[in-house]
Amino acid sequence: MSKNLKLGTNVVIHEGVSFGENVTVSDFCVIHPNVVIGDNVFIGNFSIIGEPTAEYYRNPDYKNPQTKIGSHSIIRSHSIIYADVQIGNYFESGHRITIRTKTLIGEHSKIGTLCDLQGESQIGNYVRLHGHVEIGEKSNIKDFVWIFSSVVLTNDPTPPSNIIQGVTVNKFAVIACGSIIMPRVTIGEDALVGALSLVRNDVPKEMVVAGNPAKEIGSVRDIKNKFTGEQVYPWRYTFKRGMPWEADGYEKWEKSLKSGS
Amino acid sequence: MSKNLKLGTNVVIHEGVSFGENVTVSDFCVIHPNVVIGDNVFIGNFSIIGEPTAEYYRNPDYKNPQTKIGSHSIIRSHSIIYADVQIGNYFESGHRITIRTKTLIGEHSKIGTLCDLQGESQIGNYVRLHGHVEIGEKSNIKDFVWIFSSVVLTNDPTPPSNIIQGVTVNKFAVIACGSIIMPRVTIGEDALVGALSLVRNDVPKEMVVAGNPAKEIGSVRDIKNKFTGEQVYPWRYTFKRGMPWEADGYEKWEKSLKSGS
Amino acid sequence: MSKNLKLGTNVVIHEGVSFGENVTVSDFCVIHPNVVIGDNVFIGNFSIIGEPTAEYYRNPDYKNPQTKIGSHSIIRSHSIIYADVQIGNYFESGHRITIRTKTLIGEHSKIGTLCDLQGESQIGNYVRLHGHVEIGEKSNIKDFVWIFSSVVLTNDPTPPSNIIQGVTVNKFAVIACGSIIMPRVTIGEDALVGALSLVRNDVPKEMVVAGNPAKEIGSVRDIKNKFTGEQVYPWRYTFKRGMPWEADGYEKWEKSLKSGS
Repeated sequence: MSKNLKLGTNVVIHEGVSFGENVTVSDFCVIHPNVVIGDNVFIGNFSIIGEPTAEYYRNPDYKNPQTKIGSHSIIRSHSIIYADVQIGNYFESGHRITIRTKTLIGEHSKIGTLCDLQGESQIGNYVRLHGHVEIGEKSNIKDFVWIFSSVVLTNDPTPPSNIIQGVTVNKFAVIACGSIIMPRVTIGEDALVGALSLVRNDVPKEMVVAGNPAKEIGSVRDIKNKFTGEQVYPWRYTFKRGMPWEADGYEKWEKSLKSGS
Repeated sequence: MSKNLKLGTNVVIHEGVSFGENVTVSDFCVIHPNVVIGDNVFIGNFSIIGEPTAEYYRNPDYKNPQTKIGSHSIIRSHSIIYADVQIGNYFESGHRITIRTKTLIGEHSKIGTLCDLQGESQIGNYVRLHGHVEIGEKSNIKDFVWIFSSVVLTNDPTPPSNIIQGVTVNKFAVIACGSIIMPRVTIGEDALVGALSLVRNDVPKEMVVAGNPAKEIGSVRDIKNKFTGEQVYPWRYTFKRGMPWEADGYEKWEKSLKSGS
Repeated sequence: MSKNLKLGTNVVIHEGVSFGENVTVSDFCVIHPNVVIGDNVFIGNFSIIGEPTAEYYRNPDYKNPQTKIGSHSIIRSHSIIYADVQIGNYFESGHRITIRTKTLIGEHSKIGTLCDLQGESQIGNYVRLHGHVEIGEKSNIKDFVWIFSSVVLTNDPTPPSNIIQGVTVNKFAVIACGSIIMPRVTIGEDALVGALSLVRNDVPKEMVVAGNPAKEIGSVRDIKNKFTGEQVYPWRYTFKRGMPWEADGYEKWEKSLKSGS
């Protein structure tokens, strides 16, 4: 058995579940077959890990595909993670998240309360999704992207149809609250989408867009902090909490990456 | 007892619950009194069926009214279905749906994760609600309607007031992500509401509206598939997955209906 | 022990929990240490009261701070109330609410299904939040405010940053569905924010604003009931359900307050 496994009351663990060291599974959780949980993982109450896919309801010979939860992850209560999801180390979630099958999540990413990831998507490293973000199938979210509350990434250009064309969000881009990104759109690196925007066209690198429909407004480099008057974006130079450059700043970190040290 | 009833661990079944054949009630569910469940129904973990109405909290003689779940239905985990809800056969839900009292749902309808149906509403057959759709009281949604993520159907023209005037959505209409439909509005048959629209006026049959506030843009018949150049709407001629015309197409199906064959 | 405590099946009660008289804790609830629950409180299934704060995951000596739930409160199922939350008497919630730490809520307030209160905020008395309202940290919501579905109160002027500047909503103000209020904005007393508005500037007392971005439209006093032609706002003179002036009307109640009777 695994070392220091802490099981709450009334936990249901199905066959073929593997636990690393120091795992906590809180009261009233269900862990389905073929789930692999890394070291030092915390799973909150009323959560389901390895939820069977739609095939389970129609195939009597269904076997649950493997689900992986990386080490040092915190999954808060009432969450649902489907079978055939792969989550990297140091993942952290709010409550009541839903992650559907064939979602790949990198390391150090955080996903807020009520987020709904609809599957077949890729989420990079150090991504931040705030509360109730909805990620349609076939989305591709690169490293260091921030998406704020109630944003929807769509994927069907003429609903209802059989065409699924997901959204791509490139590195360091920021999408503010309540915006809707239309199918097949690419949001450029370091771009900023203002709140409650309807984004129908690709957003160039470092561009600010806003409005319904969204229009190009200018460069992110022209946005100033209202108090200090300092340039805010690209945000990697002004924000570091929880980022790999937290100790020394982005420039030093980037240099150390390049030099391989 | 009912044939082939599969109860998970720690299931709470109150008095006067009736099960059809081959029903599965997953771990940690609560089934309140006077619930009637059809054949081949699946109920996911942490769900509540027959949740007592508001009267329960003030009437010591409260008796739970009857709740009906049609045969061949799948209700996914963490869902709440109130007492005095009637759901037809072949219903399917995502996770964490809430259906309040006096909601009537037809057959073959599907309701996505986080949907909140606030009661006293009618939902037809083959309706599709995607994730987190909010249906205010006194809404009337006809057959074959599609409503996409984060749409809200409102009902109070001068909030807060005691007036409740629900929205009507006619057959085959489509409402895209994030739109808000104001009280008393009727969306016409085969109409299309674009994403993130604020709809304050009735939408004529086959009309496209979009914007904040929404304006009439043209006929749905003018929308082309970007790849094939073909006409997309009315969608019943171009889309059939899960529809009763899936085998032979809409025209044949309609003819067979009319001829009574 | 407390008088007439009704515990459902499989309830987990940690140490140092105090119950008033006539409390009901429904099946499958978790009550964490140091929770104080008043008289006549009802807690629905699958709820967590006193959820440990983020410090719990990093501090081995963590002790749960005190959580208070006022008397005569109803907390519906699947809800999560964090440690160090204080809720006044006659609170009522829908299902699946999340209230994060350091939220103070007055008396007689109601919070709808799926609301997400992100902590460090103040909510007054007789406040009404409908479904899925998201209240960012450092929000300040005064007495008698109504906020409708899917509204977001934001707090970061240049996301991501370390600046948190919450929204203030003054007494009797109304915010309609789907609106987003930008950081540091103050909504004036008796003001009305139309549906799906993006509010970037302060809203004066009794002003109507609407649109994306929101513009000033006129006085709330000019809005008429479409049926009766009567003036609707300020709503305290036309609406009384559940309000302290329910019996005699606002004017009499206000006079009685002033005379201290």
